[in-house]
Amino acid sequence: MATILDVARAAGVSASSVSNFLNDRRGKMAPATRERIETAITELRYRPSRVALQLKTGKTATIGLLVPAVANPFFGAVAMAIQRAAQARGYQVILCNTFRDPKREREFAEDLVALGVRGIITGASLLNPGHLSELASKGLSVVAFEGDAGAAVPGIHVVSVDNAMATTLAVDHLVTLGHRRIAYVTGPAQTAARVARLKGFRTAAERHGLGEDASVHEISLPPNDYGDDMIAELGVGAALALAKAPRRPTALIAMNDLLAIGLAAGLREHGITIPDDIAMVGIDDLFLARLMNPPMTSLRQPLAAMAEAAIACLVGDAGEAAPTTALIFPPELIVRQSTVPAAI
Amino acid sequence: MATILDVARAAGVSASSVSNFLNDRRGKMAPATRERIETAITELRYRPSRVALQLKTGKTATIGLLVPAVANPFFGAVAMAIQRAAQARGYQVILCNTFRDPKREREFAEDLVALGVRGIITGASLLNPGHLSELASKGLSVVAFEGDAGAAVPGIHVVSVDNAMATTLAVDHLVTLGHRRIAYVTGPAQTAARVARLKGFRTAAERHGLGEDASVHEISLPPNDYGDDMIAELGVGAALALAKAPRRPTALIAMNDLLAIGLAAGLREHGITIPDDIAMVGIDDLFLARLMNPPMTSLRQPLAAMAEAAIACLVGDAGEAAPTTALIFPPELIVRQSTVPAAI
Repeated sequence: MATILDVARAAGVSASSVSNFLNDRRGKMAPATRERIETAITELRYRPSRVALQLKTGKTATIGLLVPAVANPFFGAVAMAIQRAAQARGYQVILCNTFRDPKREREFAEDLVALGVRGIITGASLLNPGHLSELASKGLSVVAFEGDAGAAVPGIHVVSVDNAMATTLAVDHLVTLGHRRIAYVTGPAQTAARVARLKGFRTAAERHGLGEDASVHEISLPPNDYGDDMIAELGVGAALALAKAPRRPTALIAMNDLLAIGLAAGLREHGITIPDDIAMVGIDDLFLARLMNPPMTSLRQPLAAMAEAAIACLVGDAGEAAPTTALIFPPELIVRQSTVPAAI
Repeated sequence: MATILDVARAAGVSASSVSNFLNDRRGKMAPATRERIETAITELRYRPSRVALQLKTGKTATIGLLVPAVANPFFGAVAMAIQRAAQARGYQVILCNTFRDPKREREFAEDLVALGVRGIITGASLLNPGHLSELASKGLSVVAFEGDAGAAVPGIHVVSVDNAMATTLAVDHLVTLGHRRIAYVTGPAQTAARVARLKGFRTAAERHGLGEDASVHEISLPPNDYGDDMIAELGVGAALALAKAPRRPTALIAMNDLLAIGLAAGLREHGITIPDDIAMVGIDDLFLARLMNPPMTSLRQPLAAMAEAAIACLVGDAGEAAPTTALIFPPELIVRQSTVPAAI
């Protein structure tokens, strides 16, 4: 890599002349000198070190992204949307997998600050992100890329799909098809998104007067452990209880598509057919939903627009004095073959 | 965030004393002073800025990772494995999606160098990575995370699954089950992995004397365009030609699982059943392979071991003078319900 010294040598000037040129202090510079420096920079393909240039501010043109596990296709899609939006504004993304471990999340966040990130986006907020709140109170920009406008944490921006609306639209869709025995399958209420999705399910079930027909199946997860395929595998395991339930539901809503993929595989192993025996709705609308057998009805998150909003929060013109914002995007119901009218 | 000045103030010493402490110049320092600085650092949770600490070397504790698109579940799994291996050695990962665009890949690589990365891992090498080779010749450590030991590019380390062995094992498995009319479905021979997989298929088909029974179906891709779901969608589109083929193959090998997922969905739309009408083998063994309907036979890449080897290449003790290495890992055949004996 060419250094500032290489440029100086090639242009026949001092390193401090090159530095003046780079920092727009060209007033007293002879036009011929400027030209020689320009030529040298072009020919040597010199790029000034950002580490050096940005030492004064302590910030680099980077954003930190914390996700539980990027091998989970949902967070893969999130990471891609965030990186595209960041790059459009000249920022690179430093990616960290937290495995939903608060200790690891704290260490990553501090490491990212030491690396000079402009801000941090956290792809799945734990319910008590005290460590992030603490960093935010010291001036770090933090965006929670899911959450609940009503349960805002001081100093943390929220950019999220409307999680309660997702489950509400799912229930409405199934009730319209004649289903009443509807089960909601979820992991523990460990994140803001899960809490909101569960609440949306309960509210909609009550509004439709489903009473005892609506049920919630909570799958327990090993604490602080989170792999790429764990959610799907837990779905496989949870299918048995659902298949054997005395009054089997006629429709399932899974807290996300990955869980639904696991549930579908598990139900199949127990001889249950989707949609004839049980209708199924996922949430997130991963690109995999349409490729499932049968293709699955899901609620789509507008990830590209959400990612742009998140990056705008961190690097926007408003600067550090901007008030904490909550931007909540509506999900879109995508109906496919996994949901059919209830058998009478 | 606490600064060095905060620490100095809290400890009642000068900033340069704190700097001496941090840089292990503590010889002439009174024990009481050292203790006060230590206490202040602990209480203020002070972390020295890496930007400042590492200015001298121009390097930060970061690795750059170039993948075509992290929303592709294979590259999601790669990114997670790389990040875990990097973090175990104290490195963070800067993630870039190149969309297989050489211009974008070059710009990213230069940007990563300016950010001070210790090295770059490229998750899917184009066949002419001249730009990476150029950076490597200037001292940057580069690892191609797939490729061919025989087609090494100067200065670029190779860490890869044995791609030719993957297709060879797939053909051997199908022939053992009695299949002879075997089709290999692939994208254009645009990457080292695709070239090697195609070669492995052809060699194995010839060894088994399949002759005209073995066929290659190449799917064309729009140039320099690569989305999260494109490979799968191309599989959906390619299924029609395979379903309508006059002498329809009894078995398919897809160049990767994502293509296989799309092919399976497309074949289903045309009334073809897996495995009864056509057996199917994927490559990569994404966690999704076992969750498919039916669960799919695939060739597993040992990603964790490969990621550790790649990071070791970049940050290992050997240093910059290490010779270029090629580490090729064997894939493992995982047999599931998508492959059954050929109908007689």
